[in-house]
Amino acid sequence: MADLPRRVHLYEEGPREGFQIEPGPIATADKVRFIEALADTGLREVQCVSFVDPVRVPGMADAEAVARTLRRREGVRYTGLWLNQRGLERALATPLDIEGAVRTSASEAFSVRNNGRNTADLLQAQRETLAFCVSRGIPVASGIVTTAFGCNIEGAIPVRRVVDRVAELLALLREFGLRLPILRLADTVGWANPNSIAAVVGAVRERWPALRLGLHLHDTRGTAMANALMGLQMGIDTFDSACAGLGGCPFAGHAGAAGNICTEDLAFLCEEMGIDTGIDLDALAECARMAERIVGHPLPGKLMRGGTLGRLRH
Amino acid sequence: MADLPRRVHLYEEGPREGFQIEPGPIATADKVRFIEALADTGLREVQCVSFVDPVRVPGMADAEAVARTLRRREGVRYTGLWLNQRGLERALATPLDIEGAVRTSASEAFSVRNNGRNTADLLQAQRETLAFCVSRGIPVASGIVTTAFGCNIEGAIPVRRVVDRVAELLALLREFGLRLPILRLADTVGWANPNSIAAVVGAVRERWPALRLGLHLHDTRGTAMANALMGLQMGIDTFDSACAGLGGCPFAGHAGAAGNICTEDLAFLCEEMGIDTGIDLDALAECARMAERIVGHPLPGKLMRGGTLGRLRH
Repeated sequence: MADLPRRVHLYEEGPREGFQIEPGPIATADKVRFIEALADTGLREVQCVSFVDPVRVPGMADAEAVARTLRRREGVRYTGLWLNQRGLERALATPLDIEGAVRTSASEAFSVRNNGRNTADLLQAQRETLAFCVSRGIPVASGIVTTAFGCNIEGAIPVRRVVDRVAELLALLREFGLRLPILRLADTVGWANPNSIAAVVGAVRERWPALRLGLHLHDTRGTAMANALMGLQMGIDTFDSACAGLGGCPFAGHAGAAGNICTEDLAFLCEEMGIDTGIDLDALAECARMAERIVGHPLPGKLMRGGTLGRLRH
Repeated sequence: MADLPRRVHLYEEGPREGFQIEPGPIATADKVRFIEALADTGLREVQCVSFVDPVRVPGMADAEAVARTLRRREGVRYTGLWLNQRGLERALATPLDIEGAVRTSASEAFSVRNNGRNTADLLQAQRETLAFCVSRGIPVASGIVTTAFGCNIEGAIPVRRVVDRVAELLALLREFGLRLPILRLADTVGWANPNSIAAVVGAVRERWPALRLGLHLHDTRGTAMANALMGLQMGIDTFDSACAGLGGCPFAGHAGAAGNICTEDLAFLCEEMGIDTGIDLDALAECARMAERIVGHPLPGKLMRGGTLGRLRH
């Protein structure tokens, strides 16, 4: 296990992933309270809202209100998700820490369902967004390949397909003289297993050894923590995650399935393995309990019920 | 990952682990129906009941009734847990597949709370049980070290302590000219992490290279699947598990915490990694849904909601 990172960065996406999929209306004040509590735990980056069509995702209709209301803590980045230039322009009009990003999908069918366009059109849209970012001086912070490990609609995804899509993204960035600070490989609908994590991460890293990689894992079928361990064993030091295991993809076609890998459970795993997260685990477990109270039903996170080991360890 | 086993044996403990901790009375007929469904999935060993004091564990008061009622399927072993000679004698009076077993605890405090005696007294009790087994011609099938990775009462458990306890058990067996077919290392209250799995398994294996090892994992703090992966990477091919993630220890002191590692989620992980389990995943996921209906509340298993990949894979 020589490749374990010393420090892991957890990018908290619970407020966005979670509250966009919840059926009930979540009060803006509750979202703000939850985000503020998360920012007090040592997390350095919290994705607060998504700037998407409120007709398709009614739970995010108050994105601007959340962004404007929350009290910011120094040293924490408060981000928002956007999927097209219109969303980006909405995001830029708020006080959030908005950066450029590029996205592609390893599955054509998922791209159409999630983004409303095939991957060729999606790439062209990224080109226009990049041009807009460059003209406004907005730095491009990350790229993501969704459904990189499999797709409920299209089925298995060949590793080669992921490599091709990454190559397209990087070529697009080069058109603008840009490099990608980090590429996120997303197991959007919970198809990954430790072998496929090793295969995809290995193939991308072999072709682009200097490209920093992150993992966006979903626990749809219970494998997220094993997949995270394989990522850690390969030296991955950046994970997207959601407090309490909030989330799930509204367009993935399995209502009720588990959501993102749970932030506090993953942070606990890391800390127990001697990998620094910078997070106060007890405070984060308390956030998870707050999330359950806000959504009004049990969430999948375990640490919030099992408790941390700090005071038990002696 | 050269050490991955080709085939994994999952020892189903859901009916025992799960129904002993559930507060509501579970009908004997429901227990029987669940056990029979489990035996139809390809599982080869199902722990059905425990023969323990019905005052301490009222949910197991109908152990004999369950054992006598269930229809047996050829090729499946139906076992029962017992913790002392009185329980063993009750078990032997039923048609279940009852074998000898020896147990110790890495934690003195847990031993007292769970077994009602310290580990020296527990060892002496094992001696008496072994003498009884030998006199009756009952084969001794397994040994277990509980709280091998940590204890909520006593705190961290040194690796050396586990090795000492294993040595005591093996010495005891030698007194009777017996060898142990398998030793189970139990993370009874969810303290293990992949590093401690590697440390404890490594230390025991270094001292007794020919001793077959199994893992009994609890998902109290969300790390069970990562711990299982580490076990698999070390060649462990036997895991105790519970359908739907039923269970939890009634004496562990955290009500509501997650139970055993979920059988169908672990079987899914194995099958996706190319490790044969002999299990029909769809049938097992259906058992998990049955378990939820029986206990009347959500259980932690993920695959029963996320669904298998078979028909999605094309």
